[in-house]
Order: sequence, then structure tokens, then C-alpha cells
Amino acid sequence: MNRNDTICAISTPAGVGGIAVLRLSGSDAKTLAEGSLRSPSGKAVRLTDRRACFAHLFADGDFLDEVVATLFVAPRSYTGEDVVEISCHGSLYIQQQLLQHFVSQGARLAEPGEYTLRAFLNHRLDLSQAEAVADLIDSHSQMAHRLAVSQMRGGYAQELEQLRQQFIDLAALLELELDFSDEDVEFVNREALRNTVITLESKVARLIDSFQTGNALKNGIPVAIVGRPNAGKSTLLNALLHEDRAIVSDTPGTTRDTIEERFFVDGIEFRIIDTAGLRDSSDPLEKMGMERTYKAVNEASIVFLLHDAQTPTDAFLQYDMDDISSHCDMKGKEMFLVHTKCDLCTPDCDEGIRISAKRGEGIEEIKQTMVKSVQEQLKQQSDVMLTNARHYEALKKVLAALGEVRKGMEVELSPDLLVVDIRDALYHLGTITGKIAPDDILTSVFTRFCIGK
Amino acid sequence: MNRNDTICAISTPAGVGGIAVLRLSGSDAKTLAEGSLRSPSGKAVRLTDRRACFAHLFADGDFLDEVVATLFVAPRSYTGEDVVEISCHGSLYIQQQLLQHFVSQGARLAEPGEYTLRAFLNHRLDLSQAEAVADLIDSHSQMAHRLAVSQMRGGYAQELEQLRQQFIDLAALLELELDFSDEDVEFVNREALRNTVITLESKVARLIDSFQTGNALKNGIPVAIVGRPNAGKSTLLNALLHEDRAIVSDTPGTTRDTIEERFFVDGIEFRIIDTAGLRDSSDPLEKMGMERTYKAVNEASIVFLLHDAQTPTDAFLQYDMDDISSHCDMKGKEMFLVHTKCDLCTPDCDEGIRISAKRGEGIEEIKQTMVKSVQEQLKQQSDVMLTNARHYEALKKVLAALGEVRKGMEVELSPDLLVVDIRDALYHLGTITGKIAPDDILTSVFTRFCIGK
Repeated sequence: MNRNDTICAISTPAGVGGIAVLRLSGSDAKTLAEGSLRSPSGKAVRLTDRRACFAHLFADGDFLDEVVATLFVAPRSYTGEDVVEISCHGSLYIQQQLLQHFVSQGARLAEPGEYTLRAFLNHRLDLSQAEAVADLIDSHSQMAHRLAVSQMRGGYAQELEQLRQQFIDLAALLELELDFSDEDVEFVNREALRNTVITLESKVARLIDSFQTGNALKNGIPVAIVGRPNAGKSTLLNALLHEDRAIVSDTPGTTRDTIEERFFVDGIEFRIIDTAGLRDSSDPLEKMGMERTYKAVNEASIVFLLHDAQTPTDAFLQYDMDDISSHCDMKGKEMFLVHTKCDLCTPDCDEGIRISAKRGEGIEEIKQTMVKSVQEQLKQQSDVMLTNARHYEALKKVLAALGEVRKGMEVELSPDLLVVDIRDALYHLGTITGKIAPDDILTSVFTRFCIGK
Repeated sequence: MNRNDTICAISTPAGVGGIAVLRLSGSDAKTLAEGSLRSPSGKAVRLTDRRACFAHLFADGDFLDEVVATLFVAPRSYTGEDVVEISCHGSLYIQQQLLQHFVSQGARLAEPGEYTLRAFLNHRLDLSQAEAVADLIDSHSQMAHRLAVSQMRGGYAQELEQLRQQFIDLAALLELELDFSDEDVEFVNREALRNTVITLESKVARLIDSFQTGNALKNGIPVAIVGRPNAGKSTLLNALLHEDRAIVSDTPGTTRDTIEERFFVDGIEFRIIDTAGLRDSSDPLEKMGMERTYKAVNEASIVFLLHDAQTPTDAFLQYDMDDISSHCDMKGKEMFLVHTKCDLCTPDCDEGIRISAKRGEGIEEIKQTMVKSVQEQLKQQSDVMLTNARHYEALKKVLAALGEVRKGMEVELSPDLLVVDIRDALYHLGTITGKIAPDDILTSVFTRFCIGK
């Protein structure tokens, strides 16, 4: 991937449409575009910065299309290089011919994310902002969109970068001490260093804690529906989705595998998981179903425990609660009791949500319970939220290294040993904003992108 | 469909991409756009003609996306109205929110083709050019693209419009004679009228003749492969497509139905049709297969008659040629004899193309024969070609009316009767360029379009 090439790609979605947009970026972008354009009266075209120019585009001397071309002069462009955007008619033939034409003139087809990679390399955005661009394009709920926007606008990366700078200064002074190690001087106030380490540790720990929620908000909040066979789990799923997604029958145990569906309430995406019924069974097939049910509960943020209103609540609650809590880690989740089939019978218990999927009663309350639960979880989080798995992994390494630094200071470790862990923490911090960006990180970040961005 | 509304639509192909473009058109386009945009520093944005403006877009006060907005001031825009193009990140969520936002601000979602309809109504292009825009977007071969471009740039419509103007002048004078019918004056030189009618007739007849070729070039040249059972028809189809499309076996009669596939040679699209074997049969299923074979030959522009090189050519030729020509209309088609399986045996006849699909020999010659045949057919056509079925139907009505006018003049029909047929011809001529555009014609033309164009 030569970073000096002029690159081209169709930046609009693949397919036929009214218009499509080809993007040229690189030092030859202006020359290549102007060489292919003529005014409607046949004159040469001179593109000027940010001015949309209607022109005829010729490929190999043949008229190809009427286009609008706009030049963005470096560095005030998306990539920080000269960029020309050519808006053409959205036929597949024209799009393909346009690409072929510019490749024959010396441009190269852009790799996925290469425009954003260049924007990063030209310091138009940091690595975490570049990743947010891919998140923004992928986002399909209001929450995912907001998280991506917050990250694109700086988010926690800027704050981490400031702490990193502070930390770098201290580390540099600490290294200076090594040069004077015979003289036993201290350039770094140990108290200041400890405070920086502690501040950073608590900041990083809070971010790490926010990942579960942040990631769930980005990819959909997992909600598990559990309960005895025939408690009405699949019926509730269908009622929430307004469609017949899961097979419903009077036969207990109709749902064997877990069924997962996505839907949106108030701009939040939920992944709702219908499970096999909870019961003792020696049937190996049902045992496997149960294992999957426990797994679904473990992964869920919200659990609805369904109870058939026609059966006594007390015995039900005791047994099923015990069953679930003995098999699953309930930390950080909310569990709600739901009485089903309330059209047939009034439950013997005041607690819990009463629904009748048949009559459509209580379904709205279920939805509002889900939204409220998410809002409660959000209140407990810091205002910024970690959504990126790469950052999560890096921050865990930062936290481990910081822990080592703190422990080292407690036992008054010599500066040369402290510096090793500090460098380690700095390295992983640096990979988040891309201050440290080895090629493998860049590759893994930018291959997530679509072509043309 | 209120034509004064400000309309909006996503003009780029449906789906997720690097960027997407929303188009606003109408008198409120500028106000709506400016009301939703802020500069990165938070200031109000003033859009100026054709200047790409980087800005933040807010929907209901919430930051939605970083966009580039470009205003095209009326009448120098695609629709002839004020147009604002907003280029945003290509996430489905953003695209949908953008549309919702502008609709909530008073814009209306555009109907398919409504931008081009407005361009037509504002005299930015005539109806035939508007139709060419849809053809251009649909075109997926070089030929189809060229035909659409030629029509978009004026094509035969301009010439027809000139003849129509000439004809209108004569018709007006003829109607004037009616007012003076008592006085027996002739304002219209009958010789000039006859010449105009004859010129128009010959022009229209040539265009009508070109439709078969024009339409075939646009939609793919139909090529039929016929021959005895087991002559190697499906093998040839597979060799041309480089894939195993048709089932090939030693059992004669393997192909029962006709199989149609499209492929491209030198920018021309061919629709190649593999047929059931030609043979006498009383089996009703095979008889149905034969009927379809004849139908395929009737519709084809090029016919390849396949002959197994292992059998004598003379008897073969006589029988099969007779069979086909007795069942099919061979006018305007080219038929080529092809000896197959030439790896097994040398044919006893010098004529014809020799192929061995097994060895890949002769396949290139088949392709070049197809291209040459198309080029020959093109030479026999006028330089402009009719590709639009609507125009074809209209021109047939024009020709019929002109015939009536000419016949009427021969029997010295009175002007009041001549005028009826002349008006009829003028009407149908006018529908081509849209000088006469009843709502049903506009509806049928513009519903062909995609949304956003």
C-alpha cells in the first residue's frame, strides 16, 4: 500500500441509484480530473477549491457522462490531500467505467478505509476518531450513533492523551534519574508520580467497567426471556416483535434452541433471546437446551423470568430463582418477574409485571421496563463509554501495567525497573489514539471499513 | 403530486456506504438546509451558489453528522429549482434520520423520477431526454450506454421536433384556408405540404425500422442456438459462458426448455438462447419444446445452426433448413452453420464455422461472428436508432396518420378533413419530446425511475 499514490473509489453504496460519487485523493487528483473533463461547450476545465463544476467527462476520448466535480484543496479535505469528488449518474456501467478510466490514467483503486487512513496519517483525526467513522457508518440505532459521534468528536481519547502526556513527562524525568544513578538524586517527586498513576488507574478502570454497557448499547442490549416450559416465552417474543418469529404451541418444550431477534425501543437496540424452558430433565437434547439458556442469561443485561399466572408463585419463585442463580452470574444484571396469561387467571402475587400477550396487555410495560433498566445502568456509568473492543483490550493491558508500577513504587523499586512497566503502560495507551500505531494495528483498524471511505 | 413542494430523497444507491447524498429541491431548499446547518464553530451557515460547504448538521437540536452541503441556485440546477445536495456519512441510520428531519421541517419525500420530472417541467430537458436519463442509469453495456447518451444529447428527438415545427406551420395555414373556404383560396402550397409529409414519413419509417436493432442493442442481441438432438448446443452455450449453465449429457433431448443467458462481447450484450433439439416427434412434451425453439428463432437476430461433424452435412442442411424456414420468419436475421465436435471428425463440408467446444477451438470465431453480424446490421441502419418502446408505438401512430394525409391529398380531400389526420400525426409526434404531455404519459415515463433521480 503505497501512501503516495493517487487513489480512487466509488464512495457511495454499491448498486444502481440516481447518482454515485467517485473520490480521487492524492497529489495527482486535480490533474487526473481536469484531464478527463470538458465544459459543455468543449473547453478545458479548471477546478477551483470547493466549487462544484458541471462538466462532461470523457474516457479514452469518448463522452461517458455529465458530472459535477468538486475539488477540495489540501490540507482542507477529508484526507488532508487534494481530493476531487465526481458525482455521476448511478449506473453500474458508468461507475465501473469511471474507475477503469482513472486507473488507466495512473490512479490506484483504494483499499477499504484508505481515505480515512490517509486522514489519520495526515493528522486530520486520531486513530480513535478514525475508528469512530467506521462505527458511525455501521450504526443503525440512535444509541450506537450517539456513541460513535461522541468518539468521533474526541470522547475519552483526548482525556487519555492528556494523561499520557503528563505520564510521559514523569517517565522522561525518571529515565533521567538513571543517568545520574550514582548520585542518588530524585528528579521525580514520587508523590506526584503516584498520584498520576492512581488518577490514570481509576480513569482506566472506570472506562473498562463501562465497556459492557457501551458495547451492549452499540451492538444491542441482550435481554433473556426465561421460565418454565409453556410459560409463554415464545408468545412474549412474538408480541414484542409483532410477528410470528418463534413457533408457539401448547406442547411444553417447543423451543429447543435459543432464538435471537433485534428490535428498537426509543432509539435503543435490544437483542431479545427466547430460551428453552427451565426444568429438570435427563433428556440429553433438553440438557443441551438448558445449557444454552444459562449461557443466554449469563450474557444478558436484562432477564425476564416468566411465570404462568395459573400456577402458585411462591414455589415457582423459590425453585427457579435458585436454579438460575446457581448456574449463572447475576452481577450487573436486572431480573424482572413477569406473570403471563393474566387473561386466564389473576396471579397470587402483587410483585411483578402482569401481561396477557393474547390481549396485548402489559407488552408496553415490558418495553418501558427495558428502557428504564438501560437508563439506570447508564446513570451508574461515567459520562464517556468504552465501545471499542480494541480499546478495551488495550486498556486492560494499561491497567495491568499501572498496577505493576504502583506495586513497584510501594516496595521502592529502582527507577530502571519502574520505567519498564511505565513504558508498557504508555505503549498501550498510545495505541488507542494512534500516537503509537504499528502496522498490524492500522491494518486491523482499517480493514473494518467499507471501500470508498 | 404537488409540484410546488420542496422535495427530498436520498439520491445515491440504497444501502450502507462511505457517503450518501440527500437532495433537496424546491423554493425552500436553501432555507431548510441553512436552518439545519452550523459551522464547526457553531455559527450560522450561509450557502452560496455551487460552493461546497463543510458543516455540522443538527436534527431537532441534536448533532447528527458532519456533512458537505452544496447549493445550486435556480435555474442552473438539475431540476431548474434551487437544489441543495447534502453529502453525509453513508449509515442507514443517518440517511433515514436526515430524511425524517427534512420531512419534519416541511419537505416532502420525492416520488420516483420526480427530480427529472421537474427538470422536464422547467424545460431543462425534453421528455425524450428525460427518458434517456432513466436508460442511462439502467444501462449495463457499452452499447446501451451509448444509445442512452445519444438520446440524452438530443438524438432523433430534436430532428423530429424540427420537422414537427415545419408541419405545424403548414397545418396552421391549412386551417386558415378553412376560414376562407367560401373563397376557394390556397394558402398552403400543396407541393410543399406533400414534400413535408413525404420527408416526415421516410424519416419516421426509418426510425421505426431501427427499433428492432436499437431495442436489441439496449436489451441484448438475441442469439438462438438450434440443431438436432445431441448436436452440442448446450456444450456451446457452456463454452461461451465459461461455466456449466446447461445440463450436458449424451442422452439426446436433455435440454427440454429454452435456456437464456446474457453475456458481453466487445461492449455488446447478447442474450444467448439454448433450445431443445430439432426433430420429428409425436411426444407432446417434445412438441412443446420444439414450439419454443421456433419461437426463439423468430425472436433471434442471429441463429447458429449446429451440425454434428460426424454426420453427413448435405442431408442435414436440407432437412433442418427446410424445417426452420417453414416454421420461422427469417427476415432480418443471419443464420450461421456450425460444425461441432471437430475434434472427433473433420466435417465433409467447407462452409461453416468449425468448433470443438471440448478443446475450446472455434469459440472465439463464434463470438467474432456475433459481433460482426451486429456491426453489419448497424451499417444498414440510420445513424440514430430508436430504443424506446413508447416512442416506437407513438411513431407507428404518426406513420399511420401521415399515410392518411398523403392518401387524402392524392384524392384532393378538403382541408377540413386533411387537418384531422395532420392533427393526429402532430399529437403523437408531440408526445415524444413532451411538447404534448398528458398526465398518463408523464406517469408512465417517470414511474420507471429510481427514487432520488
